[in-house]
Amino acid sequence: MSIREKVRKMKEEAPYLAAFSVKKRNEALARIAKNLRAHAEEVFAANQKDLEAAEGNGIAPAVMKRLKFDYMKLADILVGIEQLIGLPDPLGKVSLSRELDKGLTLYRVSSPIGVIGVIFEARPDALVQISTLCIKSGNCAILKGGKETTYTNRALFKIIHDSALQVGLPPNCLVQAELHSEIDELLACHESVDLLIPRGSNAFVQHIMNNTKIPVMGHADGICHIYVDADADTLKAVPIIVDAKTQYTAACNAVETILVHRKIAKAFLPRLAQTLKNRGVRLRGTAEVGEIIDVETIEDDGFIEYLDLIVSLKLVSSVDDAIEHINFFGSHHTDCIITENGENADRFMQMVDSAGVYWNCSTRFADGFRYGFGAEVGISTSKFHARGPVGLDGLVTYKYKLIGDGHIVADYASGKKRFHHKEI
Amino acid sequence: MSIREKVRKMKEEAPYLAAFSVKKRNEALARIAKNLRAHAEEVFAANQKDLEAAEGNGIAPAVMKRLKFDYMKLADILVGIEQLIGLPDPLGKVSLSRELDKGLTLYRVSSPIGVIGVIFEARPDALVQISTLCIKSGNCAILKGGKETTYTNRALFKIIHDSALQVGLPPNCLVQAELHSEIDELLACHESVDLLIPRGSNAFVQHIMNNTKIPVMGHADGICHIYVDADADTLKAVPIIVDAKTQYTAACNAVETILVHRKIAKAFLPRLAQTLKNRGVRLRGTAEVGEIIDVETIEDDGFIEYLDLIVSLKLVSSVDDAIEHINFFGSHHTDCIITENGENADRFMQMVDSAGVYWNCSTRFADGFRYGFGAEVGISTSKFHARGPVGLDGLVTYKYKLIGDGHIVADYASGKKRFHHKEI
Repeated sequence: MSIREKVRKMKEEAPYLAAFSVKKRNEALARIAKNLRAHAEEVFAANQKDLEAAEGNGIAPAVMKRLKFDYMKLADILVGIEQLIGLPDPLGKVSLSRELDKGLTLYRVSSPIGVIGVIFEARPDALVQISTLCIKSGNCAILKGGKETTYTNRALFKIIHDSALQVGLPPNCLVQAELHSEIDELLACHESVDLLIPRGSNAFVQHIMNNTKIPVMGHADGICHIYVDADADTLKAVPIIVDAKTQYTAACNAVETILVHRKIAKAFLPRLAQTLKNRGVRLRGTAEVGEIIDVETIEDDGFIEYLDLIVSLKLVSSVDDAIEHINFFGSHHTDCIITENGENADRFMQMVDSAGVYWNCSTRFADGFRYGFGAEVGISTSKFHARGPVGLDGLVTYKYKLIGDGHIVADYASGKKRFHHKEI
Repeated sequence: MSIREKVRKMKEEAPYLAAFSVKKRNEALARIAKNLRAHAEEVFAANQKDLEAAEGNGIAPAVMKRLKFDYMKLADILVGIEQLIGLPDPLGKVSLSRELDKGLTLYRVSSPIGVIGVIFEARPDALVQISTLCIKSGNCAILKGGKETTYTNRALFKIIHDSALQVGLPPNCLVQAELHSEIDELLACHESVDLLIPRGSNAFVQHIMNNTKIPVMGHADGICHIYVDADADTLKAVPIIVDAKTQYTAACNAVETILVHRKIAKAFLPRLAQTLKNRGVRLRGTAEVGEIIDVETIEDDGFIEYLDLIVSLKLVSSVDDAIEHINFFGSHHTDCIITENGENADRFMQMVDSAGVYWNCSTRFADGFRYGFGAEVGISTSKFHARGPVGLDGLVTYKYKLIGDGHIVADYASGKKRFHHKEI
């Protein structure tokens, strides 16, 4: 069957999956956990094949570590599934209930999105996280993982899919795509697929966004800022910046630009520069920064995403200056102010137009697990639907249910009846 | 100034508008009401010019009625503004507050979308409704109305914009576009405009959706269904169908397709057909329907949006049959089941994948005013962000605020600290 045929079947089955009770959906998750445990050795063996292929291709040790699937990773995954089972049902939540008139009642009730396509990087744990989040939220999912984990993903998918069938979920509620060409096929399925969640490089996400009519959730850039205010406690500022820049440079929530208030620049910059250089961070800065510390000069259009041990430095004159820079050059992901001045912090957090606005803590906290969402399918820099780390809440929509007893609009248009709009 | 320059200024001012208190935003609404009252005669005079031009162009009486702006319409508008002032602030609502660890607290807080472009039909009340909704929700708006109300819109916009300035809102928080060519200019402003809300014909909305990178909220089609179940009370069914088809045929929430259970078709269809024919409704139906009543035959691909006194009829064998037809042929707008069987109603309302799922009442209730939203900027058939009639709630997004005291991720990655995720 082609991807188009598979997702068409999926679309037909989606309302049936949506109608399953949370008890049934949790039962599926519990079965997945049980079967992962029982078939662990098969997954490890499959993973061994991926690792050998990766070694043959001369893949870097850091990446090899991410590809590896062992008891430690399995244990983390099993804890994650347990947490997910424990979370409240995201479906059927009533967010509005209003009597419009006698006998005419309106409810706004959460419901699944339907059919979601997720394209993710080569990380074996991603396939498990994404498919369990989708099952818990009543969504059908097409899963396409990175090719470096082909064997591991195939083994994991078989276990997960078998588990879903064993508890009686619809056969096409989960589908795996393996070929890169199937991504392009998927992009054309706007009549069946409700949402795409691509994860990976900027160029890849941008390619997806430009080549489909399906709504896309995710983010291309992650240009995060830290603004060090005139009233900053610099003893807090340095470790926060070091953490945000160096704790995991390849993450989208790593900091890329540091804005420093002119009033403290001369005292603060040399200390910051020394610490960052000791950690191997390359410094780039405006000409003005270059008068205080030794930096590679950058122009006004050089405030980019490095995803590496490089940072941009610039001076500003006020919190409003910082806000303007961030709103103009940033990617609306996660931005932080370091200050002991509550008023400045409030202003920054109100006016910076980003999914995450932080005060005195590292931008690296922008993550579904750290936020307590159990897991995340991605981070959204869109302002629509879901913003920031996306967990169960971001995988549901709502519908309005209106229940009457023969009510017609003509009675209200003519003035014979009137709405009374009582919350119930 | 070009539209591009205007919206760029607007984008810069948007965070300042977002920071105004609800007291200030309500003050702006009250000032608009006061000034509309004081300058009513000027608006009526401007409206007279539009009406004369329309008459010269031989515009239909029904449309003329919609163009007219008189004391009655002004009174409705003033009531609407009063209601809007009375509604709670949609901004700053906290929907999640969680202590991640000691001293590290996460809040999810509602905030404005930013810059919204609204393109609407020739109805003078639309301009007032949309601009007041945007001010209340802290959003900047570019407003482009239908050309048949050019003079009226210009007069209304001047009053509204002057009022905003009088209470001290940013000068570019509201901008009017008047030329059709400015729409194309606006479509290219994806770096400054956060959202477009087009209202009007399917072809127009589709044109907008296909020609911009800006997210679009709205709907192209409105193919609404009524399913008359085997357990329907047919005394309720007939008036509901008449209302849904004839009360206002040009509306997107008017019904287009009636599905009837085979078990009751022979008894029910002749009565329904007679009543509809008496109201001037043309009947189209499948060959099977044609064996029971006199209809123009339609094929399986003929279930379209008429926006006229025409209806499609088809028989089904079960509630699941009806659900499948609606999910496949429908536009996910508003669909209704007529039945006295609660189980069938529940199944229908759960499994039909539409913004509105109704039981025993007319589809024409799908409307922001009738839902008690005060007003609406449009109806969304997207599953993302806002679904169904869109009022204040649909004009806000949220941001995550994280407040720490020097917290860094390295401490959690190393196991030195652990998250405790307490709701507060």
